[in-house]
Amino acid sequence: MINYDSFLSHSAEQMKESAIRRMGMLLAQSHDIISFAPGYPAADTFPWHEFTEISRELLTGADGSVLQYGPTRGFKPLLEAIGEIMKSRGVKTAVENLIVTTGSQQGLDLVARVLLDPGDVVLVELPTYTGAITAFRNVQASMVGVPQEADGIDLGALDETWQRLIRDGRRVRMLYVVPNFQNPTGLLIGLEKRRRLLDWAERRNLLIVEDDPYRELYFEDSTTEADVRPIRADDANGRVVYLSSFSKTLAPGYRVAWIEAPAPLVAKFELAKQAADLCTGALDQRVVYEAGKRGVLQRQLPLLRRHYQAKRDVMVEALRAEFGDTVRWPAPRGGFFLWATLPEQIDADAMIDRAVQHGVIYVAGAAFFVNDGGHNLLRLAFSAPPHEKIREGVRRLGAAVRDEIAALVK
Amino acid sequence: MINYDSFLSHSAEQMKESAIRRMGMLLAQSHDIISFAPGYPAADTFPWHEFTEISRELLTGADGSVLQYGPTRGFKPLLEAIGEIMKSRGVKTAVENLIVTTGSQQGLDLVARVLLDPGDVVLVELPTYTGAITAFRNVQASMVGVPQEADGIDLGALDETWQRLIRDGRRVRMLYVVPNFQNPTGLLIGLEKRRRLLDWAERRNLLIVEDDPYRELYFEDSTTEADVRPIRADDANGRVVYLSSFSKTLAPGYRVAWIEAPAPLVAKFELAKQAADLCTGALDQRVVYEAGKRGVLQRQLPLLRRHYQAKRDVMVEALRAEFGDTVRWPAPRGGFFLWATLPEQIDADAMIDRAVQHGVIYVAGAAFFVNDGGHNLLRLAFSAPPHEKIREGVRRLGAAVRDEIAALVK
Repeated sequence: MINYDSFLSHSAEQMKESAIRRMGMLLAQSHDIISFAPGYPAADTFPWHEFTEISRELLTGADGSVLQYGPTRGFKPLLEAIGEIMKSRGVKTAVENLIVTTGSQQGLDLVARVLLDPGDVVLVELPTYTGAITAFRNVQASMVGVPQEADGIDLGALDETWQRLIRDGRRVRMLYVVPNFQNPTGLLIGLEKRRRLLDWAERRNLLIVEDDPYRELYFEDSTTEADVRPIRADDANGRVVYLSSFSKTLAPGYRVAWIEAPAPLVAKFELAKQAADLCTGALDQRVVYEAGKRGVLQRQLPLLRRHYQAKRDVMVEALRAEFGDTVRWPAPRGGFFLWATLPEQIDADAMIDRAVQHGVIYVAGAAFFVNDGGHNLLRLAFSAPPHEKIREGVRRLGAAVRDEIAALVK
Repeated sequence: MINYDSFLSHSAEQMKESAIRRMGMLLAQSHDIISFAPGYPAADTFPWHEFTEISRELLTGADGSVLQYGPTRGFKPLLEAIGEIMKSRGVKTAVENLIVTTGSQQGLDLVARVLLDPGDVVLVELPTYTGAITAFRNVQASMVGVPQEADGIDLGALDETWQRLIRDGRRVRMLYVVPNFQNPTGLLIGLEKRRRLLDWAERRNLLIVEDDPYRELYFEDSTTEADVRPIRADDANGRVVYLSSFSKTLAPGYRVAWIEAPAPLVAKFELAKQAADLCTGALDQRVVYEAGKRGVLQRQLPLLRRHYQAKRDVMVEALRAEFGDTVRWPAPRGGFFLWATLPEQIDADAMIDRAVQHGVIYVAGAAFFVNDGGHNLLRLAFSAPPHEKIREGVRRLGAAVRDEIAALVK
């Protein structure tokens, strides 16, 4: 047998398995596990009937392009519809500023490949989204974390970090942020802070990569649409690369997302995408386009806000009942996640086997940290399980934590 | 306005537009153009009715995973079905040797990222597939071309090239070949030569990347299934990374292809894919799986062979009528392409504007050469247009060539 190690690229040598994806594998192996791990949208909210109807109409064969290769930029009417969506978010844009991507993960990958060389630094929130970490790591960039406050990334720490890196001779290329219902913390960046981030990027000559998959899923008891205004909306100078997706509002099975950015960068993303997968699936794009055109997407949004808010309520109540004040979290005002701090002595990663034995999984916090932080944190996705499963899952988590503490005391 | 050049990665600086994709754009801009450019399968052969039926059954909502995120490796039953397909091609394999990719272009991209560092050399056929060129160039690999004979790549030249590169201190990582109905030449590598390639790869310690999208589309007047046996089928030592796809046999709108390779490499491809797009669309995979399970794929194959063979006949006849013996080509024994040599004085790339004026497009041969060759060659895809359009397109091409020659004489 050949030892393939000598055939691997430097990048491949450093590739690591995603903790979220690993949890997905565990989940697939057992039906009795309640999963708070991957941030799956609730499949029972998908507009199945409308998708069936749309598919039937598209698949008559009258228009062969529905199942053909398509333009790398994306299906033109969909690009125009995304332009309208951007406008509704406060961003004036045009088709030359847009590209459809095969999910937002591909968006992150294209950003990494077009904007990062090995050794370049990306500033990220501490903690940050693991999918971004893997995309940036695969081009051999370095990530340096900046702590968050209640209203998002700490601007003082951000600039101090930048200055330290520049003194050390590092090339700092961009700041990556998830301003709305951040993955994993659920935090929002405050509106004033968003504008100050733009000023800072201008002053320090960086790009901001704004990853915004959850913004439509704000919880109306605590958040309004005004609170989720994109940084890109006030970006007069072209400092922001904006990513968003239909995966959380329609369905992730259709791999359709987009990047909105300055035109010269989008032109490069297009070239990178030509080599990456030629084009996003034509049928998927057509279904998403039709769902927008027929009002399905607009009808879904208020339903989804209520759906996920109710699940947030169930999880918060269950956690309070199970843990009292030994577990803490910032109240999620939107999105899919609750970011829980366990007692200090617990290592959430080490506890996973015990949690699986109890029939529950989560993502250990350390996966979201680019330093060594987060050992006693965990990300709980309340998005997919039904209410009763959320309650039962929290009870199982409680049992796992109690067992873990008892074992540590021994 | 910011000058974004200073923000680009080295890789992005070197990215170039694909000639095939550019032709696709031209095509999209005018309805009166007859396209021999992109290798589009004929949409009127797609099993629309069966796809409609399958979609309707999948989209009832009874199984939420149909539109959910899925495992990065792929939908397990589809992986098993691909295992059976590989068996029918003479390759014994297992699920750990397989990964579903978002089209074969993603397969090439994963191969490039996992197996190539900047400056590494990939040996390629002269000419070779442009999509592979872009994938390898985007990781900053160098491609060095090896001439082809009537039965495929020239083994003598191959080893001489390898020796020269090694003397020059280059790291030669792999040989990339399209053994069946090569894109763009349409050539087959002879069976004996396939086995000798394996011996050579073993002796020189290289990997062979075998890209095999067209093998099912052999023309029964000149080729049998025995002629298209994969190199991988005789690969006792794990030297071959094999790529194939459903894009040419079902439809490219479903972005479903696969890699079959030694398990340690597939494990790395999986990690690279986690960062590239998380997973291939779940619905697309399910549709392809059902099309296999219900016999749709098997029923399509003989129809497709006859369909494309008939189009090959129409194009060959039209070219003979139009050009006599001033244009030459190797007779296509399968696949989508005819590789035409124009009179020496013509530059096919420079002639494109004139061809567009005449209402026909092709891909200029130079796009397929990694050296400066191919100026008077062009790739004509006969796969998509109906017979009458093929005839009319060849007439238009004839007019363009006559005009070009007349202009050159002036």
